[in-house]
Parts: sequence; structure tokens; C-alpha cells
Amino acid sequence: MRILMIGAGGVGDAAAKIAVERDFYDVFVVADYDIERARRTVASVQARQPGENRFHAVTVDASDENAVAAAIRLTGATHVLNAVDPRFVMPIFNGCRAAGANYLDMAMSLSLPHKDAPYDKAGVKLGDEQFAQASDWEGAGRLALVGIGVEPGLSDVFARYAADHLFSSIDELGTRDGANLAYFRPDGTEGFAPGFSMWTIIEECLNPPVVWEKSRVVGGNVETGFFTLPPFSEPEVFDFPEGIGPVECVHVEHEEVLLMPRWLDAERVTFKYGLGEQMISILKALHTLGLDSKDPVTIKGIQVAPRDIVAAVLPDPATIGPQLTGKTCAGVMVTGTGVDGQPRSTYLYHVADNEVTMRDYDAQCVVWQTAFNPIVALELLATGAWAGAGVRGPEAFDAAPFLELLAAPKPEGYGIEWGIEER
Amino acid sequence: MRILMIGAGGVGDAAAKIAVERDFYDVFVVADYDIERARRTVASVQARQPGENRFHAVTVDASDENAVAAAIRLTGATHVLNAVDPRFVMPIFNGCRAAGANYLDMAMSLSLPHKDAPYDKAGVKLGDEQFAQASDWEGAGRLALVGIGVEPGLSDVFARYAADHLFSSIDELGTRDGANLAYFRPDGTEGFAPGFSMWTIIEECLNPPVVWEKSRVVGGNVETGFFTLPPFSEPEVFDFPEGIGPVECVHVEHEEVLLMPRWLDAERVTFKYGLGEQMISILKALHTLGLDSKDPVTIKGIQVAPRDIVAAVLPDPATIGPQLTGKTCAGVMVTGTGVDGQPRSTYLYHVADNEVTMRDYDAQCVVWQTAFNPIVALELLATGAWAGAGVRGPEAFDAAPFLELLAAPKPEGYGIEWGIEER
Repeated sequence: MRILMIGAGGVGDAAAKIAVERDFYDVFVVADYDIERARRTVASVQARQPGENRFHAVTVDASDENAVAAAIRLTGATHVLNAVDPRFVMPIFNGCRAAGANYLDMAMSLSLPHKDAPYDKAGVKLGDEQFAQASDWEGAGRLALVGIGVEPGLSDVFARYAADHLFSSIDELGTRDGANLAYFRPDGTEGFAPGFSMWTIIEECLNPPVVWEKSRVVGGNVETGFFTLPPFSEPEVFDFPEGIGPVECVHVEHEEVLLMPRWLDAERVTFKYGLGEQMISILKALHTLGLDSKDPVTIKGIQVAPRDIVAAVLPDPATIGPQLTGKTCAGVMVTGTGVDGQPRSTYLYHVADNEVTMRDYDAQCVVWQTAFNPIVALELLATGAWAGAGVRGPEAFDAAPFLELLAAPKPEGYGIEWGIEER
Repeated sequence: MRILMIGAGGVGDAAAKIAVERDFYDVFVVADYDIERARRTVASVQARQPGENRFHAVTVDASDENAVAAAIRLTGATHVLNAVDPRFVMPIFNGCRAAGANYLDMAMSLSLPHKDAPYDKAGVKLGDEQFAQASDWEGAGRLALVGIGVEPGLSDVFARYAADHLFSSIDELGTRDGANLAYFRPDGTEGFAPGFSMWTIIEECLNPPVVWEKSRVVGGNVETGFFTLPPFSEPEVFDFPEGIGPVECVHVEHEEVLLMPRWLDAERVTFKYGLGEQMISILKALHTLGLDSKDPVTIKGIQVAPRDIVAAVLPDPATIGPQLTGKTCAGVMVTGTGVDGQPRSTYLYHVADNEVTMRDYDAQCVVWQTAFNPIVALELLATGAWAGAGVRGPEAFDAAPFLELLAAPKPEGYGIEWGIEER
């Protein structure tokens, strides 16, 4: 296996540090728009594993599918890991298809709200552009494994595991994400610094959130499908494990809702994120001002998108690790009927503690928690434990080998524990 | 009198439309960084007064004091009206001094917070840089009439009038500004569009607000001077006249507080602005994100200040008039002892109704309400009713001729009524 990872930001850098401990691949090329960033990642993995010679840095423009295809041909990559913002999904996806590489990402192609009823009906959905090409990928015998970060990703693996091993029927697959992270500036005062790209946070939180329902009564008829809501809908206090505690969560547009119903049977699929009061009021302000816009404005003859400025003024999520404290939790709350026929409510989750991820990987917890999943998936593809073609989500594959490899102690496994809580 | 007005934004454009009806000057040159904007203003006044030939458009870079001085020499300007953002105060002020022109502005040189106690002690105050040069101006026999918009400006005139004619002693000179304006997008939905420059709103609302106190007890001692507070301090519901009604007002850094105590005797001088809940939460969000910053950041090799982006994405205050509804009120609440020896509380105010200002001047009410004051002041200087040299605020001059000229019916006066309310 020859891996080309595009993006040496927070997640890409952490993925390289996790991958360097594994021996399932021959070459791991780190590509970035900024060659210095790619080199920094390569240097840091080489410092962790003296003598390591599988890592190389190249430059690539992720917005140009021809440049992506050229980089694949140059490196002989068999698998491309997309570790950049979701706006680059389609050029990387298309570049892979053109050059015949397999593809993995951690977020899917972007949505467009419904023209007439944006907060009721789904328009172009997350991943629609990718799934439209599913038969091409299948025909070519190539795999696009989409949404294999932590959420989507590990959450989808948990959902598949619950469906296969814990439940006989499922009412709701409800991804719930929350944290108790705090950021302190170098001078010791508390500041504002999201754990992942503000560009992506704006995208997913201000788009109409989507839910899947098997039996929604619409005007006297029962309909099955995807429906949307206004941003920040249906706030719910969810109690997160391992000391994080209760956090108010609201509906957010997320890939799990689009992926799980394709392979798993449930009455309802939802995603709620523990945004907190401050983040919600910041997002509302950005929207009111139009600073969430991706369309460039002209300032003194210079074209710049307001959202790019917002992302640029915040601390880089890749470098805030030393200033963070706390834990972040990703998981799926599954409700329904257990295999014993009794009502069951089970939360399957993973908690990352920033203190531990900084100590062991020099990576902040949110990016680290995202980064290990595609590496585990690549290892399962390398060994043949996972195999397939087409455009597929993580829940299209057997969850057991993933969770076993994840939890098995090093050096056989990754030594990463996950939890189950009955409620 | 030969007038050079620098800035053909909202206020400048309205000032030209008000000035074109008056005959006290010989030439009125409209200068802007963007020559097209200056030409648009000149064309609009010529359309209002066929045959009008006193107006001319030139280009000038307000950030360059040499360019300002050159424009004064080119046009033979005797009086320069600064109608641009307060960040350009010093280059225009210095350019006038160098070229020997008299100077008027509607906002003063910028403040810098106190290094150690920003929310308690005043650092560099609004206007400090200008007042530092007062003796030079006085020696040269030239006048810098600072803060002669509506607030500061008309508010300072009201305060002087109250001190001279209504009160024997004053407890508080409290400028209070509030509105019931609403902005509707072309599609009819309500949007967010401040009535004046968002750059300036951020500057004045996020800087530590300043108050003046004659007798403040500090650590057992009585001190006289300027003190600061945290932004949005001491919220107070103030009932505005003419149907605007109660609006929550908070302390804001403003020139009145720095000007009035120099010429008027009061126990306390304050400024409170009816920001409203939405504006406060937006300003807090901008500050949390660092989007209030004037320091450029680099985006893909381009340098741009976040605050410039915020201002650029909002509707231009100069052009929102047709989409606005409502009224705005500027005034001073004076409390103390009346000339009859009885306790007195009097609000002196001016209300501008957007419907009327659009109809009569094709100008939205906030910029129009700012714009008429420097024109009235210029007329008083032309006739000799106001005369003097040095750096002086509006309250350094007799208020009566100003208020008489303002309220007298056209064509003798400006036909602009102001109000007094006993409380």
C-alpha cells in the first residue's frame, strides 16, 4: 500500500504520527499547499521514529483535480487520504477517480439548501455529488471510503456494531458529541479556540440540520426520507461520560445522518452537537453580519471570502494543544429493542483526554480523535479484513475487526479504548 | 469661504445636499479616495439645484497628510471638513495645519487603552493627539473645530445651551442616543445594517467607555478626572421621545465626555448609547473572535484587517436609506439645579425620521442628522457669529446662534426643529 495524504493541518499531522507506529504500508506521502507544513509533519514523524524512511513531503493544490491526479501518478499512490477542508472533497475525489486510486475522506461533498423550503426539505445533501458517481467507482473496482474520521467515522462503526450485536430493532441512531475543553492564551487568560476548523464549524452549524425519519407524517401521509430543520433546533441536555457531564446539544448537519440509513435499519437518525451558548451566539452573529459567507468581497481591490478571514484570525487548531485542557467525547446513543427483546438504550463512545493525546502524540485531542480512524481503516484494507468497491460509508463494513484492532494493545493493535454505557 | 470636504460617504454626501441650499461659501470641493464617489455626490447636488457651479470633485488619499495639504493648496480651501472614518483624523488635521487651513471634524483622534488598568484608568484619550497641538493652532490663528457632528456636536451645543440658559449648577451632562430603526432587505425580510460605519461602531463600543467625574472617591481620596469602565457597563433604560420609546443604553466611549468638561462645569459627564441586545451580542462575538482587530492578517499572501472585512460585508450606510424605517434620537439629559434654584431634569434632543430625511434629502436619517451640524457651524464661522482659534469643541462657542440658525425656517435658517422635555 502506498498512501498519499493530502493536508498536513491538525488532523493530517496527527494521522502521520499515528501511522508511523504501523507497518502495513510501504510509502506515506504528505502533501500540502504549503510545502513547509508538509515538511514539518514529515520531520516530526522522523523525529519520533529514528531511521523512518517511508515518509515524504510534496506540494499539491487540493482545489485542482488535475494536480491531485498528477500527484497520485507521481507517487504511485494506491490510497489517497483527504485531510483538508470539505470544500476540497470533489477535486480530490475526482482526481483519485481519474488516476485510479482508492479514496478516503473524513467529511463529504457539501450540501446546498432547498431553494423553497430550506428548513423543512433537504436540497443537495452532504455526499450527494459523491454518491452520484458510485457506479463508476464500483465498475472500476475502486473504493471511496467516505466519512471515516471520528464523526462521521467511528460513530458509524459504533452504529453498525450496535445493529449487528446489541439490538434486534432500532428506534434512533443518535450521534451525540460533547466536550469540556477550555483554551488558555499564553498569558493565562481564557480565550476562544475551536478544536477543529472554524470554516467547517460554520458550514455544518449554519446549514439547515438534517434528520432521517422512516415514518414522518407530512400532511396526512407517511413519508420516509431526509428532512431539515432550522439551525440550533431541539436543544437537549446530554450527559457525557468520564467526567465531561451534561452539555446542551442541538441538531447539526452531519454526514452520519446521510450515511447510516443507507446500510442500517432505524426509525430515526440524528446528529446533535454540544455547541454551548457562546459558540451558538458567535455563529448567530457571524450569520447576521454575513461573515459566514464563502463568496469573496472586494476590499481595496483585493478579493477575499469573509469566512476565510474568520478562520484565519482564530488560533490554528493544529497548534492549540498545549493551551487546551479537558476531554472530548464522540459517540452514538442507540435506542430500541435489545437482542433479548427488552427495551434498550446504549451509548457507545470514545473519549479523548487532551492531556493524554498531547503527552503521547503531541496532538490536541479533537484532531487526534479524528485522525486515528482512517489509519485503522487503511490497515484493515491493507490486510483485507475490509474489502469492497464503490462509494461506501464505514457502516458498510463489519465493525468488529475495526473495534478489535482499535482496542488491542500495542504493538498488535492501537491500544485505544472505547466505551459502552447502558442508560 | 472655500470649503474642502474630505469623504463622500453617507455623511459627506448628505452634508453636500444640505450645503447646496446655502449661499455662505464660494466653493465646495468634494474629495474622496474613490473619485467616482466624489463625482456622484457632485452630480446629485447639481441635480437638486440646476445651474449650481460651486461644487467640484477631486481625489485625495486621506491617510496621507502631504496629499491632504496638497489638496488644500490646489483648491485654495480656507476650511476643511473631515467626513471620513476617525482613523484619518490625524493625517487630515496635520495636513490642514501644514497648509494653513481651518479644520472641522465629527469624531476625534483615536484612544489607546491604559496598559495596566484599561477598565479603570484612561490611557491616551479621544482627541489627546489633537489637543496636544492646541497652542500651535492658536498661535497660527487657525481654528480646529473638533466634534461638530450630531454626537459629538449638536449634543455639545445642547449642553452649552443648558449651562448658559437653563441651569445654575449641573450634576450630570448625560448624552443619550437611541433609535427604533429597522432595516429590510430588498426581499422584504428584516436584516442587520447599522446606520453608520461599523468600523466606528466597533471602535467606540469595544474601547473602554470613559466617564468624567469631579469628585470620585478612589482609595479614600477624592479625585477629579477621566475614568474608564468595562464595555457595556451600567445598562439603563432611557425613554426616548416622539414615539421611539424605552431603549436599553450602555456606556460607550465618546467625544462628549472628553469635550464638555473642558468648557462646562458639571459633577459628571457620561455618554450612553442604545445599542440593543442584538448589537451587543454581535460586538461581543466579534471581540471574542478577534474580528474587531485593526491589525492586518495574511490570507493566501494578502494582507487584510479583519475589521475592514466586517465593515465591507455589511450594507453601505450611505445607501441603506430606502430600506430603513423608524427614527433616531440624539440628545443630552441634564440634571442639576435650575436657574430658579429648584431641582431640574431636562432632555434636549433632536429626532430625525428616516421617512422625512429620505423624502427631503435622499439621505438616511443617521447620516443626515450628523451632516447638518458642520454646515451650520461653517455658516456661523462665515458670518462671524462664531470666531476663534485653537483646538475647540462646539461647547466653546455660544449655543444660541447655532440653535437659532438651525431652527429658523428656510430660507433664513435650516428649518430643523429641536426639542426640550422636562422630566
